[in-house]
Amino acid sequence: MAPTTKDLMYKLQHKDKNTKARAGVLKTAHGNIQTPVFMPVGTRATVKTLSNDEVRSTGAQIILGNTYHLYLRPGAQIIKKAGGLHKFMNWDKPILTDSGGFQVFSLSELRKITKEGVTFKSHIDGSKHLFTPENVVDFQAILGSDIMMPLDECCPYPSTKEYVEKSLKITHDWEKRAKVHFDKLKTDQKLFAIVQGSNFLDLRKISAEFLGELDFDGYAIGGVAVGESGEIIREVTEYTTALLPENKPRYLMGVGLPLDMLDAIYYGIDMFDCVIPARNGRNGQAFTFSGEINLKNAKFKEDLTPIDKKCDCYTCKNHTKAYIRHLFNVGEILALKLVSLHNIQFYVKLINSAREAILADNYKKFYNSFKKKYKNKG
Amino acid sequence: MAPTTKDLMYKLQHKDKNTKARAGVLKTAHGNIQTPVFMPVGTRATVKTLSNDEVRSTGAQIILGNTYHLYLRPGAQIIKKAGGLHKFMNWDKPILTDSGGFQVFSLSELRKITKEGVTFKSHIDGSKHLFTPENVVDFQAILGSDIMMPLDECCPYPSTKEYVEKSLKITHDWEKRAKVHFDKLKTDQKLFAIVQGSNFLDLRKISAEFLGELDFDGYAIGGVAVGESGEIIREVTEYTTALLPENKPRYLMGVGLPLDMLDAIYYGIDMFDCVIPARNGRNGQAFTFSGEINLKNAKFKEDLTPIDKKCDCYTCKNHTKAYIRHLFNVGEILALKLVSLHNIQFYVKLINSAREAILADNYKKFYNSFKKKYKNKG
Repeated sequence: MAPTTKDLMYKLQHKDKNTKARAGVLKTAHGNIQTPVFMPVGTRATVKTLSNDEVRSTGAQIILGNTYHLYLRPGAQIIKKAGGLHKFMNWDKPILTDSGGFQVFSLSELRKITKEGVTFKSHIDGSKHLFTPENVVDFQAILGSDIMMPLDECCPYPSTKEYVEKSLKITHDWEKRAKVHFDKLKTDQKLFAIVQGSNFLDLRKISAEFLGELDFDGYAIGGVAVGESGEIIREVTEYTTALLPENKPRYLMGVGLPLDMLDAIYYGIDMFDCVIPARNGRNGQAFTFSGEINLKNAKFKEDLTPIDKKCDCYTCKNHTKAYIRHLFNVGEILALKLVSLHNIQFYVKLINSAREAILADNYKKFYNSFKKKYKNKG
Repeated sequence: MAPTTKDLMYKLQHKDKNTKARAGVLKTAHGNIQTPVFMPVGTRATVKTLSNDEVRSTGAQIILGNTYHLYLRPGAQIIKKAGGLHKFMNWDKPILTDSGGFQVFSLSELRKITKEGVTFKSHIDGSKHLFTPENVVDFQAILGSDIMMPLDECCPYPSTKEYVEKSLKITHDWEKRAKVHFDKLKTDQKLFAIVQGSNFLDLRKISAEFLGELDFDGYAIGGVAVGESGEIIREVTEYTTALLPENKPRYLMGVGLPLDMLDAIYYGIDMFDCVIPARNGRNGQAFTFSGEINLKNAKFKEDLTPIDKKCDCYTCKNHTKAYIRHLFNVGEILALKLVSLHNIQFYVKLINSAREAILADNYKKFYNSFKKKYKNKG
């Protein structure tokens, strides 16, 4: 696709010699972001268990918020009064907000797609709401997120091709309407597209081409890692990424485990978000460069070493596995934070290391070396 | 009581002119403590919801640990291996450990007092254990706490005088044995006595005199604020405090609300611990110099001011009531921490302010002014 006259938010810095991996910079209203980048998830205006200072200490450059959740609670009125999500939660770095499409289809009840958009009942109090491509953009304008996402339908896996084709038509219509509406706002926020098509490569192609023509600020791949095999995830990611504009940032939504992210970087993905480091951390699972361990395991009862001796996160600098295991064992909240903090910092560092490897034309070696070492050590 | 030849841990700095309030310094192996002092409670080797850095940020000079809980989990072996409680939890300031007497009588099952001590069944797994005055000192020697407490029985309120008299004899016997055993250890740890006697002033007198003769490093008043009226609490505290040696620190165990502590300082108490700031904080109740508010209250939904504009804690410097209310409303863990942190810092500051007032011979005015302003604002 030909570059447009419009200022691009993405600057491609370097392409790795031996893979499709790339390093770049994303320009946003709240600062620049070095890519590839991992974005911690702060669904309800907080990265679970962590204070903003702690999130910053992990090296996170940008966090996520979620339109569906924030629309329901605390709602537009108070966020508007506060002057947007940044001020409401006191986070001064970039924020990306998901459109809520995924949550409408996975959490809410009695969803019904109409000409306007999708009506649904809140999973919290059963109240009835309507999301349209336009009002979802408007709500994200109130949130003031640096990057907003358009309303889409993320098909469940597996779905029939007939279902996915029909869904894709609606999603494309919604995204186009979102773009038209967004362009009227004249905001310094950015709007990404979401490429759908489930595991059908020909539909992914149609989606990437249709949306590519519409000149969004960036391109996301949605509907990946929703239940399909690793092989299909890799196939769809590799195939679809190659179809996305080179001069725009590429975001693989909701992925994933460390190796999933490194695979995707290999194919040319720039941005990731995932709840795994925080969610699994709250269950005692810690990630390190040599693999995963579960701190609830009795074998750590008297282990007076940190999760990772080489890690410089607050948790590893201050506490032992035995101490953290004790906290889990007696049900202390501090345990949840200590492991979430470590894991998010690990995710941030892993992706930063990938970036460094790319800049040194060394990504393939970095990738193979990590894959060889990384084990689930239980 | 005459001062002994032994080095005293307490240095009385100043006595307020118009009340019995006093300011001093407590010398411990992990540093000096300015008194009066509030000690946050870290029962199971963590001040609930807070990291050590956060506890330090409140200005806390010393924290508490609990023998009963730490004896059961994680147990002596791992704490010994770690080199004591300070190293196990990585807290380098002073620690006071409660003896576990209170928990044996309030939490465990099938308690039975024998000649040796008290046998009980763990509230966690029903396992059978024996606490003796000697092994409770030994366990606290393993913990390495700066100040240890002797095994005692804290009588329920109300109890008959007959019951309290009988209990007091056992408690005195236990404390004497604890002191004899402690003296053999030749440790730089300190051992306090616990004066009991419930609401019977003559028994409190007997207890204070008996224990006063035994030359403990400090004197605690136990069995207060366990269900009796504010009037009885004040009567017992005032009466008993006056009977304690002047050259030793005085600790009112488990008390209390802000005004309870200021009353006790008025009577000459130096040390406090209480779970209220953290526990109530986890329920949304915040303390300020003008009173208590509950952040779950709907009236704070759009309140974009901090809990206390003049407070310099992390929570007040960074977040609004509306944001914290949102976090409670959606069930986010960060809420628990933000209010606990604020409340503990408030408790620390309140007692520090009391100290400053004492040093300026101004305690009575400070006390009356606080009492006049302080309200429960719901």
